[in-house]
Amino acid sequence: MLSTESDPTHLRLARSLLPAGDPAAVVADVRGWLADFGRRAYTRVERIRLDRLEGWSEDPRTGDIRHDTGRFFAVEGLRVHNPGGPVTGWDQPIIHQSEIGILGILAKEFDGTMKFLMQAKVEPGNRNGLQLSPTVQATRSNYTRVHQGRAVPYLEYFRNPGSHRVLADVRQSEQGAWFYRKRNRNMVVEPAGDVEVLDGFRWLTLGEIHALLGADDLVNMDARTVLSCLPFAGPGLGAVLGRPRDAEFRAALVRSCSPEAGSLHSTREVLSWLTDARCRSDAEVRRIPLREVKGWVRTEDRIAHEAGLFFSVIGVRVSAGGREVAQWTQPMIEPNGTGIIALLVKNIDGVLHALMHARMEPGFTDTAELAPTVQCIPENHVLVPPSGRPRFLDEVVSAEPGRVRFDTVLSEEGGRFHHALNRYLVVEAEPKIPADDPDFRWVALHQLVSLLGHSHYLSVQARSLVACLHSLLTGGGEGGRATIGPTAGAAGARG
Amino acid sequence: MLSTESDPTHLRLARSLLPAGDPAAVVADVRGWLADFGRRAYTRVERIRLDRLEGWSEDPRTGDIRHDTGRFFAVEGLRVHNPGGPVTGWDQPIIHQSEIGILGILAKEFDGTMKFLMQAKVEPGNRNGLQLSPTVQATRSNYTRVHQGRAVPYLEYFRNPGSHRVLADVRQSEQGAWFYRKRNRNMVVEPAGDVEVLDGFRWLTLGEIHALLGADDLVNMDARTVLSCLPFAGPGLGAVLGRPRDAEFRAALVRSCSPEAGSLHSTREVLSWLTDARCRSDAEVRRIPLREVKGWVRTEDRIAHEAGLFFSVIGVRVSAGGREVAQWTQPMIEPNGTGIIALLVKNIDGVLHALMHARMEPGFTDTAELAPTVQCIPENHVLVPPSGRPRFLDEVVSAEPGRVRFDTVLSEEGGRFHHALNRYLVVEAEPKIPADDPDFRWVALHQLVSLLGHSHYLSVQARSLVACLHSLLTGGGEGGRATIGPTAGAAGARG
Repeated sequence: MLSTESDPTHLRLARSLLPAGDPAAVVADVRGWLADFGRRAYTRVERIRLDRLEGWSEDPRTGDIRHDTGRFFAVEGLRVHNPGGPVTGWDQPIIHQSEIGILGILAKEFDGTMKFLMQAKVEPGNRNGLQLSPTVQATRSNYTRVHQGRAVPYLEYFRNPGSHRVLADVRQSEQGAWFYRKRNRNMVVEPAGDVEVLDGFRWLTLGEIHALLGADDLVNMDARTVLSCLPFAGPGLGAVLGRPRDAEFRAALVRSCSPEAGSLHSTREVLSWLTDARCRSDAEVRRIPLREVKGWVRTEDRIAHEAGLFFSVIGVRVSAGGREVAQWTQPMIEPNGTGIIALLVKNIDGVLHALMHARMEPGFTDTAELAPTVQCIPENHVLVPPSGRPRFLDEVVSAEPGRVRFDTVLSEEGGRFHHALNRYLVVEAEPKIPADDPDFRWVALHQLVSLLGHSHYLSVQARSLVACLHSLLTGGGEGGRATIGPTAGAAGARG
Repeated sequence: MLSTESDPTHLRLARSLLPAGDPAAVVADVRGWLADFGRRAYTRVERIRLDRLEGWSEDPRTGDIRHDTGRFFAVEGLRVHNPGGPVTGWDQPIIHQSEIGILGILAKEFDGTMKFLMQAKVEPGNRNGLQLSPTVQATRSNYTRVHQGRAVPYLEYFRNPGSHRVLADVRQSEQGAWFYRKRNRNMVVEPAGDVEVLDGFRWLTLGEIHALLGADDLVNMDARTVLSCLPFAGPGLGAVLGRPRDAEFRAALVRSCSPEAGSLHSTREVLSWLTDARCRSDAEVRRIPLREVKGWVRTEDRIAHEAGLFFSVIGVRVSAGGREVAQWTQPMIEPNGTGIIALLVKNIDGVLHALMHARMEPGFTDTAELAPTVQCIPENHVLVPPSGRPRFLDEVVSAEPGRVRFDTVLSEEGGRFHHALNRYLVVEAEPKIPADDPDFRWVALHQLVSLLGHSHYLSVQARSLVACLHSLLTGGGEGGRATIGPTAGAAGARG
């Protein structure tokens, strides 16, 4: 018997949304579990001088910072020449990590409800220590045991899926502003047999994970990107999810998950627009020795931009229990301020559409990807004239509270970035854009989901926002952050 | 009104297959037209010494061969380190051409039948001078007029599709064994208004083009790759195409164009297998100075492999009328022998499936692509032990004539490759392969068509074979080559 492409996985996922219960209770429960585990799995992170890193050396010829094994990652230089861009050229340090790691989540049905095995994981860059992470989060250096740590639990489900069911399996990019062509393999695997739950792991429904996503700094970036790759589109979602409380917005969101509901532009048109953006670019990106990077100042402490903008490269010493290795030092990237990452959404003929930006970042494998409507660190724009202000930023910061559907501070990858926080927002707005705007298009959620079956269409920030949009399919409807999360006020003030 | 993804283009394409008439008459007519045009648009190609190229120089530091403008392309070196592969490492010359050109075909309905504007085009590497090519075939250097030639006709339809309808628009790779990450933008555009037909251009139905595809060396590589990107899959094709004469094979082929017919593996499974192949590879590919390439010998005449295998880099002088520039010299790649490029196909539960190979080539942008079942130049394998013989080559060369559905000698891109001929075959066969074979999968045609909406899934040779498969949807059914094309015997003898 041949299989046809129709697959009820999206309905199984929808059912996993339902029994979430009171979001605040879920958050309190998981925070308690994390705190309990944190007493056994502590991490201490201290800043050290960049020239005091152990096991890392500065290449005498290039100035690049490399691990002595040649594995993990390196800090190198990048030279960008972009004659057609708003900034025509710059140099910057960049992380070069060529190996493809695995980010994998195990999924399993219990009494008809699908649950996901999430891990309480410490990452040195996390502001708050433990966050909810995928079942497996491993670089190739990790799992081939370069640093002689313990074996990575559950790894074999992803390295040899064999008889298990693969629900998602796609390589995706990560921050193209900080990584040179980094990619990870995002996988969701439904194993055939029973799964032992180890200490620090826990089965959660999608509804529970989504409640946690509405709280600051609880669901880590790797978990968000893997969840965004779930095949969450298809017909019949409305029947499973029932009549939404906030009828108009949520009904448009549910319809946006169904290809049958249609879209403003066909997917072929959206792809043609992206192809054009990718071909139009004259940008040239060249790896250069870190020593030759212009406009950046290297002290014993850090490598920083001469105007104090963008980010710094710093050093940290990590002492950890409950991780593969007890102590190590490493370079990290520390951004200059909290970013704003926002998706404008709009109900078009009953179907919610998101305003996607064809954004170029120098580290992308393929020139440009679909990115959020707004993605910036406002502090970096203080020196540019008003004409250089990010498009649609004003629509985000001046939105009435009732139109802000999601607003949570989430952190980026804690293994490479130190306190890299972004305020993620979903905002209803009605900006007028020309139908042939070269940089922006309205795209339905089912189109984004179908593109997420392929590599390099959606940036990691856009993928986080897709996970956030999914979390709005059920739940309170008051705009998340006002009710959940103790750090809400602080984050809002920083944004 | 929102648009839904259902699109009757595949039915319009199917109708364009029908009025082909007698294939031999179509071939004779177009050959006459080409010969007539050829009297006005002659080309003379002569071999010259590599050190006598004009406008090209050898970089004194690297030995790379570059155009003095820095545009067009360069011949550089490549070092491949592939510890897990059958050959663990090698050096080779490679063509580096980073600009993305446009390969575009205009399509237009006349009295309900869609026709395609094909060009009679001379390329210096063609064995036979003129071939049928896309409406536009232009590198960026061409159309930004680096060599001060005439404007490229019809180019604006593709550079500014604006109000026209875009039927296909996707960047695709070219030969990864000879090009470093070369990509062209493949486009089919249906213009809104009338189109003037210039000398050397002609409207042809798909049925006519397919008849020509069955003749040796008439439809060039660029035309084949663009045609393969047409959205040729969808329901209802059987009703348009009528009851096929060769009931079993052709009915299975028609069903293979319809997603409703299903497939042995879901597209998600096929992509997961390809993702795994791309992640499993440890291959490292590094550009090196041409001078440092080991195992190749440079004489004043050519750069050749020391055992006379694979290919040579040679020089030619081209004198042309009816082209943008009257005379020029350039380096070209000349392969060592005629290749065999074959797809094994099999009727699985009434649906034709093709056996696709996840093949790595050093110049691919993304490690591996779906390639034909067999792709080799048999002469290159004389020195390897029998265990190194390409898999499934024996099934191709020993197939009974009745199972050979397509067998035509077609040439590769005549702008860069000198007499690069391959015998393209579609062969019915029943090889047993393990369901989890790491290198091969059976894939239905509608799955290949859906992947062709995206970049870098199908190699240029696989795309040619997709166009060949489409040509079998109608037509004689006796296996093409026995009845059409004066050079059939010669080609068969060389293969």
